[in-house]
Amino acid sequence: MKLVKKHSKHVGLPPGSLVHVGDRKIEHPNITLFDYSPKKWEEKKLDVVEESLPFKETSSVTWINVDGIHQVELLEKLGAGFGLHSLVLEDILDTEHRPKYEDYDEYLFTVLKMLSFDDQKGEIHAEQISLILGRTFVLSFQERVGDVFDGVRARIRGGKGRIRSMGPDYLAYALIDSIVDSYFIILEKIGDRIELLEEELIGDPTPKTLQAIHRFKRQMILLRRSVWPLREIIKELQGAGSPLIGDTTEIFLRDVYDHTIQVVETVETFRDIISGMIDIYLSNMSNKMNEIMKVLTIIATIFIPLTFIAGVYGMNFRDMPELEWRWGYPAAWFLMLAIFAGMMLYFKKKKWI
Amino acid sequence: MKLVKKHSKHVGLPPGSLVHVGDRKIEHPNITLFDYSPKKWEEKKLDVVEESLPFKETSSVTWINVDGIHQVELLEKLGAGFGLHSLVLEDILDTEHRPKYEDYDEYLFTVLKMLSFDDQKGEIHAEQISLILGRTFVLSFQERVGDVFDGVRARIRGGKGRIRSMGPDYLAYALIDSIVDSYFIILEKIGDRIELLEEELIGDPTPKTLQAIHRFKRQMILLRRSVWPLREIIKELQGAGSPLIGDTTEIFLRDVYDHTIQVVETVETFRDIISGMIDIYLSNMSNKMNEIMKVLTIIATIFIPLTFIAGVYGMNFRDMPELEWRWGYPAAWFLMLAIFAGMMLYFKKKKWI
Amino acid sequence: MKLVKKHSKHVGLPPGSLVHVGDRKIEHPNITLFDYSPKKWEEKKLDVVEESLPFKETSSVTWINVDGIHQVELLEKLGAGFGLHSLVLEDILDTEHRPKYEDYDEYLFTVLKMLSFDDQKGEIHAEQISLILGRTFVLSFQERVGDVFDGVRARIRGGKGRIRSMGPDYLAYALIDSIVDSYFIILEKIGDRIELLEEELIGDPTPKTLQAIHRFKRQMILLRRSVWPLREIIKELQGAGSPLIGDTTEIFLRDVYDHTIQVVETVETFRDIISGMIDIYLSNMSNKMNEIMKVLTIIATIFIPLTFIAGVYGMNFRDMPELEWRWGYPAAWFLMLAIFAGMMLYFKKKKWI
Amino acid sequence: MKLVKKHSKHVGLPPGSLVHVGDRKIEHPNITLFDYSPKKWEEKKLDVVEESLPFKETSSVTWINVDGIHQVELLEKLGAGFGLHSLVLEDILDTEHRPKYEDYDEYLFTVLKMLSFDDQKGEIHAEQISLILGRTFVLSFQERVGDVFDGVRARIRGGKGRIRSMGPDYLAYALIDSIVDSYFIILEKIGDRIELLEEELIGDPTPKTLQAIHRFKRQMILLRRSVWPLREIIKELQGAGSPLIGDTTEIFLRDVYDHTIQVVETVETFRDIISGMIDIYLSNMSNKMNEIMKVLTIIATIFIPLTFIAGVYGMNFRDMPELEWRWGYPAAWFLMLAIFAGMMLYFKKKKWI
Amino acid sequence: MKLVKKHSKHVGLPPGSLVHVGDRKIEHPNITLFDYSPKKWEEKKLDVVEESLPFKETSSVTWINVDGIHQVELLEKLGAGFGLHSLVLEDILDTEHRPKYEDYDEYLFTVLKMLSFDDQKGEIHAEQISLILGRTFVLSFQERVGDVFDGVRARIRGGKGRIRSMGPDYLAYALIDSIVDSYFIILEKIGDRIELLEEELIGDPTPKTLQAIHRFKRQMILLRRSVWPLREIIKELQGAGSPLIGDTTEIFLRDVYDHTIQVVETVETFRDIISGMIDIYLSNMSNKMNEIMKVLTIIATIFIPLTFIAGVYGMNFRDMPELEWRWGYPAAWFLMLAIFAGMMLYFKKKKWI
Repeated sequence: MKLVKKHSKHVGLPPGSLVHVGDRKIEHPNITLFDYSPKKWEEKKLDVVEESLPFKETSSVTWINVDGIHQVELLEKLGAGFGLHSLVLEDILDTEHRPKYEDYDEYLFTVLKMLSFDDQKGEIHAEQISLILGRTFVLSFQERVGDVFDGVRARIRGGKGRIRSMGPDYLAYALIDSIVDSYFIILEKIGDRIELLEEELIGDPTPKTLQAIHRFKRQMILLRRSVWPLREIIKELQGAGSPLIGDTTEIFLRDVYDHTIQVVETVETFRDIISGMIDIYLSNMSNKMNEIMKVLTIIATIFIPLTFIAGVYGMNFRDMPELEWRWGYPAAWFLMLAIFAGMMLYFKKKKWI
Repeated sequence: MKLVKKHSKHVGLPPGSLVHVGDRKIEHPNITLFDYSPKKWEEKKLDVVEESLPFKETSSVTWINVDGIHQVELLEKLGAGFGLHSLVLEDILDTEHRPKYEDYDEYLFTVLKMLSFDDQKGEIHAEQISLILGRTFVLSFQERVGDVFDGVRARIRGGKGRIRSMGPDYLAYALIDSIVDSYFIILEKIGDRIELLEEELIGDPTPKTLQAIHRFKRQMILLRRSVWPLREIIKELQGAGSPLIGDTTEIFLRDVYDHTIQVVETVETFRDIISGMIDIYLSNMSNKMNEIMKVLTIIATIFIPLTFIAGVYGMNFRDMPELEWRWGYPAAWFLMLAIFAGMMLYFKKKKWI
Repeated sequence: MKLVKKHSKHVGLPPGSLVHVGDRKIEHPNITLFDYSPKKWEEKKLDVVEESLPFKETSSVTWINVDGIHQVELLEKLGAGFGLHSLVLEDILDTEHRPKYEDYDEYLFTVLKMLSFDDQKGEIHAEQISLILGRTFVLSFQERVGDVFDGVRARIRGGKGRIRSMGPDYLAYALIDSIVDSYFIILEKIGDRIELLEEELIGDPTPKTLQAIHRFKRQMILLRRSVWPLREIIKELQGAGSPLIGDTTEIFLRDVYDHTIQVVETVETFRDIISGMIDIYLSNMSNKMNEIMKVLTIIATIFIPLTFIAGVYGMNFRDMPELEWRWGYPAAWFLMLAIFAGMMLYFKKKKWI
Repeated sequence: MKLVKKHSKHVGLPPGSLVHVGDRKIEHPNITLFDYSPKKWEEKKLDVVEESLPFKETSSVTWINVDGIHQVELLEKLGAGFGLHSLVLEDILDTEHRPKYEDYDEYLFTVLKMLSFDDQKGEIHAEQISLILGRTFVLSFQERVGDVFDGVRARIRGGKGRIRSMGPDYLAYALIDSIVDSYFIILEKIGDRIELLEEELIGDPTPKTLQAIHRFKRQMILLRRSVWPLREIIKELQGAGSPLIGDTTEIFLRDVYDHTIQVVETVETFRDIISGMIDIYLSNMSNKMNEIMKVLTIIATIFIPLTFIAGVYGMNFRDMPELEWRWGYPAAWFLMLAIFAGMMLYFKKKKWI
Repeated sequence: MKLVKKHSKHVGLPPGSLVHVGDRKIEHPNITLFDYSPKKWEEKKLDVVEESLPFKETSSVTWINVDGIHQVELLEKLGAGFGLHSLVLEDILDTEHRPKYEDYDEYLFTVLKMLSFDDQKGEIHAEQISLILGRTFVLSFQERVGDVFDGVRARIRGGKGRIRSMGPDYLAYALIDSIVDSYFIILEKIGDRIELLEEELIGDPTPKTLQAIHRFKRQMILLRRSVWPLREIIKELQGAGSPLIGDTTEIFLRDVYDHTIQVVETVETFRDIISGMIDIYLSNMSNKMNEIMKVLTIIATIFIPLTFIAGVYGMNFRDMPELEWRWGYPAAWFLMLAIFAGMMLYFKKKKWI
């Protein structure tokens, strides 16, 4: 996750100008269409946008998914066909947008982040998903191919669950639910890594451990940014009272809301735990360092007085009576050993060793 | 308490799919039924769920308690029998769920955490309790056998207190009250441990003390997660104005609410105290280390100049007049003692020793 | 102040069970009664609770004060006589209760903490006061003899101020006002101690100073717990719109509310100041330690190279021309002095000494 | 600013008792009166309070300012003359009161803090100002002579601006505006001092610098206490909808409100900056200390092995072949130089020197 | 950005006095006028303010931009011509004002900060922009020549986008949008610098790195001050329901609001990241220092006992049998090497080296 993407392309352009902000992650946009009613369903890969327009007015539920949003003209056509405000198109193109929800009366517009976890680098990647819920259709826009909606597709195809018998509001819910559910997988992976790090902390922590902890801390800062706004978005969506969302779906949205809070709380708990880990690491390190310094200093301290005594009897004065004594040398050793023992006892008593 | 349980089983399934999230903690589910009215009561261990259905419509209060929730079919049958929404069943099965409250008009649904304290490991364990309050019944779901409801059972059997003369709302209150009351026992135990740790801190703290403090800190992070949502839940329950909760019971719920706030505040106080203890530990350690380093460095510093002098008179120059002096050796000793005394005085004056 | 008192006695009992939580602080409960109207007043020490009941219905204001609440039967009788809810009695007996306010239509119930400062130990002690304001009476419950209400008693006896001409709401206000006023005395004492500690900090701080600061910090954590809820309580009391509280008294309650905020803010300010003091202590200590280490290390560093030189000319090689030189010895001294001077200059230039 | 002034005088007195809390800062109270209308104005120094009463009922605007509030009788007379509640008088006398606003229907009562900066000590002093806005009059009470209202007086005398053509609400606004404006002067002075300190920090910081920073930090704690409540007060005053405040004045109050927010934000910014400065100081100090320790330790470390070698060849064994070698002595020097060079290279490579 | 600009000029003046607060950044004020309707447009540089007045009443949209606000008379004339309140003029002149929004019924008044980033110094500079939105006109005031409105001007001239077909509310929106968009450029630049610093942190951090981080931290404190109030301002502007703002423009304002939140969140994220960087720097530094100290202390510790042994055999006692031994010298070396090896092994085992 980069800190800030290049927004500057926008500057100076009239509002609602369609400029793609972000990296181009796919060669050609990929448009797929689902059209279903309780009894039947149809799945199609579209070559041109115009093919989708006839489905707009049918009473069956139509889901058009666009992978790859860098082709501005494609979006313009879709926008014209489905009557989207130019600001909506601008927001879809701006992949740096924070999650948000807006009610345009004729349709509801939601921007979400789909997260994936790069196991290699231990980094979270975000992809922007824009959803538009109209009276008979749902439009979804993704930055690249590959998403978390395969379960929803399978349910439409197989007629499992209630999805085929419900309206587009339920489809929109199902998509949002898939995204929020996928957050749990990310959180599990991060949770596992944090637990590994905790074991490392207790075992044999190295500066690398601290680096890893700090990396997670930063991931959490960026993760929060994707997750916090979700809460409010889904709250608004649920309480919006828009005629586009039926009562039955509202109960399901309440459930997603619950999950969102759980995600938010887990992120916060992770933050608390991570900052606790940093404290533990630092006090461990300082403990270890103190222990080393203490032992080493004690050794030095014990030998310095002894060396002094040896130095004294290495002096070359003519008249040093001790040097001539019969037991002078053993006496010197005795003195030195006595000092050694005395210091050891003192340090023991002081509980320094 | 694990950080995150495996939620991933859910991903890709239609919402409302019944999947058990969590560990299987019991072999066979255990279903017990209480049915009581002011005059009489009946207690039964059920083999099959279907036995409970006739009690649903009677005017007497029915309490069905299920220990062990991993048998999905059992829950499906109960759900069908008592008209529960599939999302409710999904939440009951997901033992990782955060405490919550939902009003489904026909019944109220609450998820709570029952905590127990493992004295050996000094860890808190959480078990999920789901309560459903209907017009004439209360359903409760637990992960395993063993709970804090024995007092309630005894009161039903003995007809003590007002429980037999009140409706299912009072029963639900009594169960919640038992859970919240049991939090105080946990808090007392933790409080006792914290006080022990405080004494250890004043007495003879070791790195183990710090580890224990950090462990408590983390326990508090996880405890908060169970306790915080409670406040809001009971507030909503009390103020919900649901026809399922009578005025008399509302006064009692206000009392539980009070207790909940007290629990929350105690947890917060513990957090404050624990972080104060970490500060005290660290400054103690650093004090102790400083004292050691100071004494040792002072010893070294005093002897280094003395050793230098001894070294000087150990040199082998031909012409070193001092060596030939009659009082040379005593003079050297005198010089060294003078330096020793001078340094001691200086350090004393500076208040370093 | 203990962290958590034994709540566990309650567990498993029906709600509203009367169990005394806390220490028994008095031998026999002490019941005193005041009954007054603008013209006359009566003061009585009651032997049995029943003596108080006739006063309940008179139009004069009746104030019954109970010191010592461990006799459960006494409370039960009073409760029955004055129509108190069993939960109210339970809360009165639970001396661990957090300050709270509840409106029971027929009467208002308030739990407050009366604080006293133990000058010896420098600790705050809390005693629980429960107040019940009825249409013609005020009941107050204390844990032991001795309180801050002597001023109120004197005013009733002497007819000073407006107390005799006002209703029981004003009496309740006067009692609360006395309690809040007494907080200021505690805060003054703590403020004085903090200022003493600040002088110690500037003068000659020792590890004892830090301990004292940490003790105050902890006192503040516990003090906050008593004081914070007060704000809300008095706000509710004032804005409750209960018919039991007249307009005139409401203005006075607004005044107490003001005082409460002042108490809360002072506690917060103390917390800020105390944590500032800890910072100052720590940076002082580290400054002092650094200074010691620096001087000592510099001494050692200067003599180590000199000792080396002495060592060199203490070697016993056969051919060491310097040893035979006429001015060898003075030259060696000169060399050592030159090194000494050079190092001193270098350290001076670097501003290390 | 003292932490807590002696509030204890109040304890035990009936509420509304008039007791002066604070230091007596002036010998005799000083009463001045302004009475003006668009056409004319009158200025008077009053000897007795009673002289002011006739002005109360005139349609012209009357401003009575009292310097020195320790004479309780004076306040009692004014209170009686202008119909003030005894709690208002109590608050005026209590110079320790936190800023507040109260609507007594007949008049509005506001307590503010007038700050001054003692350039010598670098301390902020607070003086309490109480304002009462009635239908035709404004009363202001100060602790001592000397205030920030000279500009307002000049405008009344000179008829500059709109003040003479507006009512007492505008006068009250003008006084509050003067006080809030004077805060900016304090903030400028503090801002200048902080900038000086920042330069000192970059230049040559000493422990005195840290002390000064900590002193400012504490000043900020106390300053906040005066400033924070202001925001709320002026918000309430502006939105009160009291008939005593006209629409025109409300626009001006909105302007003061803006200034108040700016003051509050500046104080918060100062707090942030000051705590940043403490961090910078500490990391600077630790950097400096580390650098010293490093250099000194390196010197010691280099010479210790060299001294060892000198020691070896100072030994007196009979058979030490090296001693007899022709080039023994130079070889020893060579060895020592080689070790010296090797260590220097190693340290260089490790980037330690 | 200075901490506090000289506000003191104001003190003592009647409210609404026109005093320029801030530096004079331009010689002569520069007035330019745009007047446009869907069909045509006119652009003019005005010499005197009076030339603008005729445009006020036309139905076409008039935009008057003033660069340089230090000429008080100019503002007075404009104020009189367009009916502005004196407080508005005062706020325009006070370049130190915090961002704000006020509804004066006839017109809306907004103060914003236009930021620019000084690449050389790495500092943010703020310039105050005041906007007035009337029924048919927009007035904008800047401190100096040069702004971020060139895009808007180009769109008016070229008739691009919808600007020519919309009213003055859309023009005001477009100006605000340009300002908020320009914040993203600043944030990108800061983001880039932070990323550079992060690389430096991982690579070779020096005390300069820390200084740079602290500088950014302080920039963030000041940036927040400009950005935080924006959120609330635009929220109010959008929800104001003023008849001056049409429905179409409201949707666009909602979009700017979104951008503002994104700016605010990015600033907060930067703050989090920066304080994380400081932690990383400090723990890196302390790691590095510890490593140095450890190696150096180990060297010293190993040689001190060896030097002691050399010292012992350098003593001059008459009877030192070892000295006479045939293998005495090699034995001494052997002893010393054995001690050396033993210590190395011990340290290795302890994982200190």
